[in-house]
Amino acid sequence: MPDPSNVPTPGAPARVFADRHIGPAPAETAEMLKTVGYGSTADLMNAAVPASILSAPGQSATLDLPAAIGEAEALAELRDLASRNRPTTPMIGRGYYGTLTPPVILRNIMENPAWYTAYTPYQPEISQGRLEALINFQTMVSDLTGLPITGASLLDESTAAAEAMTLARRVSKVKGDVFVVDSDVFPQTLQVLRTRAEPLGIEVVVADLTQGLPEGDVYGVLVQYPASSGVVRDPSAVIAEAHERGALAVVAADILALTLLRSPGDLGADIAVGSTQRFGVPLGFGGPHAGYMSVGEKLRRQLPGRLVGVSVDDAGKPAYRLALQTREQHIRREKATSNICTAQVLLAIMAGMYAVYHGPDGLRAIARQVHTRTAALADTLAQRGFEVLHGTYFDTLRVRVPSADRVVERALEAGINLLGVDQGTVGLSVDETTTVDDLEKVLAAFGEADRGAERGPVSVDGDADRLPADLARGVDYLTHQVFNTHRSETSLLRYMRRLSDRDLALDRTMIPLGSCTMKLNATAEMESITWPEFAGLHPFAPLDQAAGSVSLIRDLEGWLAEVTGYDAVSLQPNAGSQGELAGLLAIRGYHRSRGDDHRDVCLIPSSAHGTNAASAVMAGMRVAVVACADDGNVDLDDLRAKIAKHGAELAAIMVTYPSTAGVYEDTITEVCRLVHEAGGQVYVDGANLNALVGWAKPGEFGADVSHLNLHKTFCIPHGGGGPGVGPVAVRSHLAGFLPNHPGQPEAGPHTGVGPVSGAPFGSAGILPISWAYVRMMGGDGLRSATETAVLSANYVAKRLEPYYPVLYTGANGLVAHECIIDIRPLQKASGISNEDVAKRLMDYGFHAPTMSFPVNGTLMVEPTESENLAELERFIQAMISIRGEIDRVASGEWDAEDNPLRGAPHTAEAVTADEWNRGYTRAEAAYPLPSLRQDKYWPPVGRIDQAYGDRNLVCSCPPPEAFEL
Amino acid sequence: MPDPSNVPTPGAPARVFADRHIGPAPAETAEMLKTVGYGSTADLMNAAVPASILSAPGQSATLDLPAAIGEAEALAELRDLASRNRPTTPMIGRGYYGTLTPPVILRNIMENPAWYTAYTPYQPEISQGRLEALINFQTMVSDLTGLPITGASLLDESTAAAEAMTLARRVSKVKGDVFVVDSDVFPQTLQVLRTRAEPLGIEVVVADLTQGLPEGDVYGVLVQYPASSGVVRDPSAVIAEAHERGALAVVAADILALTLLRSPGDLGADIAVGSTQRFGVPLGFGGPHAGYMSVGEKLRRQLPGRLVGVSVDDAGKPAYRLALQTREQHIRREKATSNICTAQVLLAIMAGMYAVYHGPDGLRAIARQVHTRTAALADTLAQRGFEVLHGTYFDTLRVRVPSADRVVERALEAGINLLGVDQGTVGLSVDETTTVDDLEKVLAAFGEADRGAERGPVSVDGDADRLPADLARGVDYLTHQVFNTHRSETSLLRYMRRLSDRDLALDRTMIPLGSCTMKLNATAEMESITWPEFAGLHPFAPLDQAAGSVSLIRDLEGWLAEVTGYDAVSLQPNAGSQGELAGLLAIRGYHRSRGDDHRDVCLIPSSAHGTNAASAVMAGMRVAVVACADDGNVDLDDLRAKIAKHGAELAAIMVTYPSTAGVYEDTITEVCRLVHEAGGQVYVDGANLNALVGWAKPGEFGADVSHLNLHKTFCIPHGGGGPGVGPVAVRSHLAGFLPNHPGQPEAGPHTGVGPVSGAPFGSAGILPISWAYVRMMGGDGLRSATETAVLSANYVAKRLEPYYPVLYTGANGLVAHECIIDIRPLQKASGISNEDVAKRLMDYGFHAPTMSFPVNGTLMVEPTESENLAELERFIQAMISIRGEIDRVASGEWDAEDNPLRGAPHTAEAVTADEWNRGYTRAEAAYPLPSLRQDKYWPPVGRIDQAYGDRNLVCSCPPPEAFEL
Repeated sequence: MPDPSNVPTPGAPARVFADRHIGPAPAETAEMLKTVGYGSTADLMNAAVPASILSAPGQSATLDLPAAIGEAEALAELRDLASRNRPTTPMIGRGYYGTLTPPVILRNIMENPAWYTAYTPYQPEISQGRLEALINFQTMVSDLTGLPITGASLLDESTAAAEAMTLARRVSKVKGDVFVVDSDVFPQTLQVLRTRAEPLGIEVVVADLTQGLPEGDVYGVLVQYPASSGVVRDPSAVIAEAHERGALAVVAADILALTLLRSPGDLGADIAVGSTQRFGVPLGFGGPHAGYMSVGEKLRRQLPGRLVGVSVDDAGKPAYRLALQTREQHIRREKATSNICTAQVLLAIMAGMYAVYHGPDGLRAIARQVHTRTAALADTLAQRGFEVLHGTYFDTLRVRVPSADRVVERALEAGINLLGVDQGTVGLSVDETTTVDDLEKVLAAFGEADRGAERGPVSVDGDADRLPADLARGVDYLTHQVFNTHRSETSLLRYMRRLSDRDLALDRTMIPLGSCTMKLNATAEMESITWPEFAGLHPFAPLDQAAGSVSLIRDLEGWLAEVTGYDAVSLQPNAGSQGELAGLLAIRGYHRSRGDDHRDVCLIPSSAHGTNAASAVMAGMRVAVVACADDGNVDLDDLRAKIAKHGAELAAIMVTYPSTAGVYEDTITEVCRLVHEAGGQVYVDGANLNALVGWAKPGEFGADVSHLNLHKTFCIPHGGGGPGVGPVAVRSHLAGFLPNHPGQPEAGPHTGVGPVSGAPFGSAGILPISWAYVRMMGGDGLRSATETAVLSANYVAKRLEPYYPVLYTGANGLVAHECIIDIRPLQKASGISNEDVAKRLMDYGFHAPTMSFPVNGTLMVEPTESENLAELERFIQAMISIRGEIDRVASGEWDAEDNPLRGAPHTAEAVTADEWNRGYTRAEAAYPLPSLRQDKYWPPVGRIDQAYGDRNLVCSCPPPEAFEL
Repeated sequence: MPDPSNVPTPGAPARVFADRHIGPAPAETAEMLKTVGYGSTADLMNAAVPASILSAPGQSATLDLPAAIGEAEALAELRDLASRNRPTTPMIGRGYYGTLTPPVILRNIMENPAWYTAYTPYQPEISQGRLEALINFQTMVSDLTGLPITGASLLDESTAAAEAMTLARRVSKVKGDVFVVDSDVFPQTLQVLRTRAEPLGIEVVVADLTQGLPEGDVYGVLVQYPASSGVVRDPSAVIAEAHERGALAVVAADILALTLLRSPGDLGADIAVGSTQRFGVPLGFGGPHAGYMSVGEKLRRQLPGRLVGVSVDDAGKPAYRLALQTREQHIRREKATSNICTAQVLLAIMAGMYAVYHGPDGLRAIARQVHTRTAALADTLAQRGFEVLHGTYFDTLRVRVPSADRVVERALEAGINLLGVDQGTVGLSVDETTTVDDLEKVLAAFGEADRGAERGPVSVDGDADRLPADLARGVDYLTHQVFNTHRSETSLLRYMRRLSDRDLALDRTMIPLGSCTMKLNATAEMESITWPEFAGLHPFAPLDQAAGSVSLIRDLEGWLAEVTGYDAVSLQPNAGSQGELAGLLAIRGYHRSRGDDHRDVCLIPSSAHGTNAASAVMAGMRVAVVACADDGNVDLDDLRAKIAKHGAELAAIMVTYPSTAGVYEDTITEVCRLVHEAGGQVYVDGANLNALVGWAKPGEFGADVSHLNLHKTFCIPHGGGGPGVGPVAVRSHLAGFLPNHPGQPEAGPHTGVGPVSGAPFGSAGILPISWAYVRMMGGDGLRSATETAVLSANYVAKRLEPYYPVLYTGANGLVAHECIIDIRPLQKASGISNEDVAKRLMDYGFHAPTMSFPVNGTLMVEPTESENLAELERFIQAMISIRGEIDRVASGEWDAEDNPLRGAPHTAEAVTADEWNRGYTRAEAAYPLPSLRQDKYWPPVGRIDQAYGDRNLVCSCPPPEAFEL
């Protein structure tokens, strides 16, 4: 019997998940199609998409995916998967620790769409809440590490270390490429360093730093503090020696230990890196967590990633914004110094709030508890005849035992994961969740080495201090008011609400960001990520404890391969940038495996995302730019010329498809052919995959590798600027060169290129989101989403065309899933820029589209499939109204400077001021459309002075007096 | 070995839950104590609380409760309890059905503090969001029931039926007290009717209405539609007969069935009642869910509970508010017509949003699916030789079987709960969660009656219609725009956000409501209530499936008994009003058991909550008012006089302690003694228990019975006006007269007074909140909370005394946990009323204190223990600033009418208007204090015209044009 239980009764509208995910109802779709001029979405797609890339001529692709199920069924399946995980007490350590996420933070940040659906704060006026939260994070890290400039998070500790390695290379005047790494470093960090060093020609030398630096030219050194083995050594001698020899010193430091230990900055380090996971961020089988990097003043312009700074708005009021950046200051195409784009904002905010909630005294108390319990364990073990390897430690011990396997196994029977370091050594780490009961279980697992020893109970009451006296922290931290105010849940709750109320996220408005695919992040997709069974797994836990997660990962790999037409997928890259790097490393590995070591030129069209070139540089390639024609498409003649020029050095081409101009270029198959003929590989950036799913598969139409952005097409929320997930998908000949992981054979091929993330499966903790999306959409739903996204973009383009030129179009005058609106002609006539339009949209309650990418002076609009017709029209009406305003400036009715566009955004304070001397009315400022009178969003600050902020760089919490009026 | 694992390391601040729950940090407490003039909170308590009521002279009480544990540990214990529940597929029916809560509603309403921490919308200007959500609910019920006036929810279907029974009695001109009830009614409804009828002298006559009404005077009749057995009969004949005989007709209707069936209004009913549980509200082992009542125009002033209506604000803009009410229009003390106070707002909002999300077509499709699957089951059962008892049905069947027990047992083995109706009859109900797989399992449980019958598969593809053709619905419903707009999750999410942003709840500001104890509802307390193991249990499921919930209930009963000093507790009453009734019924039962049937006078002080008198009337008592002296205390002389006057008719006294004036009266023990001597019982209203816990126990200092409000002292959030839970606690001699339940022997004593709620354990689904509170606070934490609450109230009183007279105080000039600020002298001088102050506080970002209770012209402030000093001071500064404003009016500087107090609250629209003709500045209107410039709450509407709304009663969604400007 066919089971129609999951199929709605005929006539049941909106009972299918896809109908809830996709904004326009059928009648709205029909209306939009009429405007665009097509009879069906299939007709539209066939008109827009070149037949040459279709899986089947004239029709959509077949997706061999499980049939769609409803929300309740998907949650039931997720519960079943979750039940197959068995998270135990995680005492493995190695950079990942149990932590108590305050429930108020879990619910009101991680489970709150006001936070998780927010976009990266490129538009600072509507992002003041998360910017303040990030500056709290920066202040916290700077205070604890003793280095004044901290970025707004990196992807994890291991990649932060890699960023430090390359930063040091750029800065150090030492010749040569030797970077020395502490032999007592976390193994995954060492491996990520090696993956990243090799293509750049950096030589990673592992050394026992207790013996000082090795001979020879050394441009940088990394010390783990406390060490991976737990021992706490004073790194100052090594740092001093490094400095004497012109090298930079990087300290990878445990953020909690720093509450008791002298800070890296205090010890002379140039750079500190680490993870803030243990500040309340769930383990999540490896991520996402916020890595950190802090540096001294001298290095501030070298810092990879985003940096939040303080500036002032047009009324002179302090206001936060991203500092020292145009788009991303370090992604300067072929001159790039890093490819980092996505950060871990949501997790950085959580870690920052954890510090806000506990304050300096609370954090110190947590650290003291951890330390005291570690000492109690060490003492009792010693009492019972075991050799504890080190006399100093913070939270981690190494203990000699007759059989490590036996101890680890017995601990596991008691529900605790210990670390088998080697045959005769067990490792363990204590964290804030460790109870005295856990300690007793650990002791029981060890048994007794010396039967004659007296077996006393573990005592945790003492005031043990096993930190070197020289390293005792003398410098205060977190003295700013924000870390000393919110001790009650009520107070913290209100603080978080106040911050989120300042921001515009998807829960209030469409965010029509070209190239960023800000679509619905459905609750049913989000629910399971905070379940303890998914959230509580240590990344290095034995895989049989993670059977559900592994099964989910395998499902998702298979589904993504099916959707993209590739043969293998790795979910390890924890951001799109890392996916790009992994994809290019696969190409590099492939060429080298064939002896084509000389193939190192990567062709990149001039319209590409800046990240592409940066990634190519990081993959050891030389970038050659391919020109674009006036229509925005790749210039085939120039491509042929470049191929000819580089000949046997051609490694690859990286193209985005549809193009970054939002157009289905009909030359893509020709591009692929030409590059393949010349022995190159084709990399298709999957950023715009939302325009292809269910219609065309890059792996079928000529590409060899793509990275995807699960936080774009596959519904992982942007989280205010991260987390992201950037899987890499390849055809079979590249499969052997995907990332792998030394700590987990199942994480990738044994022939792989090494890890690109600290955790074997990257940000595994949020993969249930994309799993649920695909599971609930099914093939038909995914196809329909693509069609609607394309329809919506064409609808917006068509509706706005009478008011604004649409810059690029493809076949039949159609765009793909986004459209570029050209403000330049209007600017010529009126002086009003695309930035003015973007800021003015805030007065209308909108987040601006993408500004000046890929073309200066334009706005790129991507509505996605999740916006219904009413919301599309609300945006269109705002844009039409703004066009009218521009005309009033152009005609001279409004002054070129004194007009609502230049004055935008308008705060409530400005519009309610007793004095009003502007050349337009208060109503024109605040309520340009009557509908705004019902629910008005008031930007919390006016236009922010970017230059002022860069001239007067302040990257930590400003004093309260700064806000006094 | 002592296990200190749950005890923080010494010096660890705020690692204990109580430190997070209690707002003031130790240093703040010290500062507050200094202001109030005491050295310690214990000193303060000893000075404030009469020694005569203390458990131990000069010191706090001993609470024999488990030691406090942390949030993580409490959640682990709750997970353990949850794992002992085994929710199965609930096909029992009887008014409770499986339902799919849209995850977006679950997360963003039920799990969102902006909704769940809101207060009852007595201050409509800052409650527009929830008022709109409630008017959606009202419109939904009115449309579906065909009766134009619907209240904003009642407690459940059974109590709604009881309210209808008493309403009909008030209205009907028929003499006599006979209320006829359909014999095919839900059993729990019949039992609740009986509990409620008996004290009022109403005779409930059960009759088979297919035979028409019984002979004799009948004032009202209740029909179940569809019937409890599932059969769908046309009630019009009975309704017509009732009307001919002068009786009112009440139809208890299934809300989902009404999408396909003619409405009660259409069939002539005067009143419809029912439950909206199956519109997306989790079963929760019985509640909370929103009951409904709708009536015709003629009965609108008789409607019990709250009614949301539309009015206009001072700018003529439509605005919502509670209609036809001063405080609660029906609670008129001894002239009361109902004691309903708390509603089920949060659940009504969920049900309303479910309708908004599905719309008329979606609801109809759900109903069709339910019906089609029911028919498929019926057909297949018949095919297999079973007798299906009725030819018409919506979702419920009765089937003859050789052994009902056997079928029920086999179904249970397959994970499905069926209903054993009697030895030879099985009942079952299909709902929107029922899959075809479930149907197959049910069929398998039945086996085959006739082995010879051909066993075909169940087919659900048909278009079966087993509803009587005459009853097919012909009238449209939910045609209003709001039910036809939000089909995508994105759209609904934004709608819910927009609504919640209009409101002030605890997540933004203190809500200093006297007598309402608006304290922290901690996330860790809230988390578990939406876990499927607690949320998915049917109230009539076999108890062994609910072992965890039962254990939790027993824990909580025991802890509440310990805290209050009573011997037995019933958690069944699902609101304070029901707890009052249950307590008084216990007293009534006790007197009657002793032959004291004549004891029916209940003494109530003039300062009492209106609910007290109303409950007494409902418990069949006559109310005699005891005067209060000028100091607000009970007038002992008058009490003696009243006792003497009523002599042997004295049943009880009901007092609130501390008094409703917020004072510890030192005469309470004397009051108890006098009443006991006269043979009466002492009822202490537990509304103000937050001033006693850990210091004094009513059960010890002389009371016989109390009800508690778990949504006050024990942290169940107010939910915008419900759910509440009102347990009743009694000394042992009354224990036999607690509520019980015919469907569940474990729910109360076999000698009990019957059920006061449809579900055996009332609103069991939210009891984990209070459980977690007590578990995490422990005895010390609870005591400390009380002390801080009393300290905070005295601090506020002391700080405000120079500006406003504090009306009543007790020993040493101290108040208890709240204080009354007298506005009358200032009003005399300035014309500014307490209402003006209340509305002006909105401009300062505050929810007003309680207005004019217990004394007209005053404001009663209860800060609770959860507000820290910063928030207390923010309130105090606002009040001081307002005092300054009043002075400017009094001095004539500001006009008596044209001033910011009378003009309050000020909307953004008003303050940004191009025209500003007021006698004060825009800045004075909007930013009377500089701190408001940072995060300003803008009331969405101005002062609402109450009279206009009552003159022009509109209680359903107004047309969109109403909002056009």
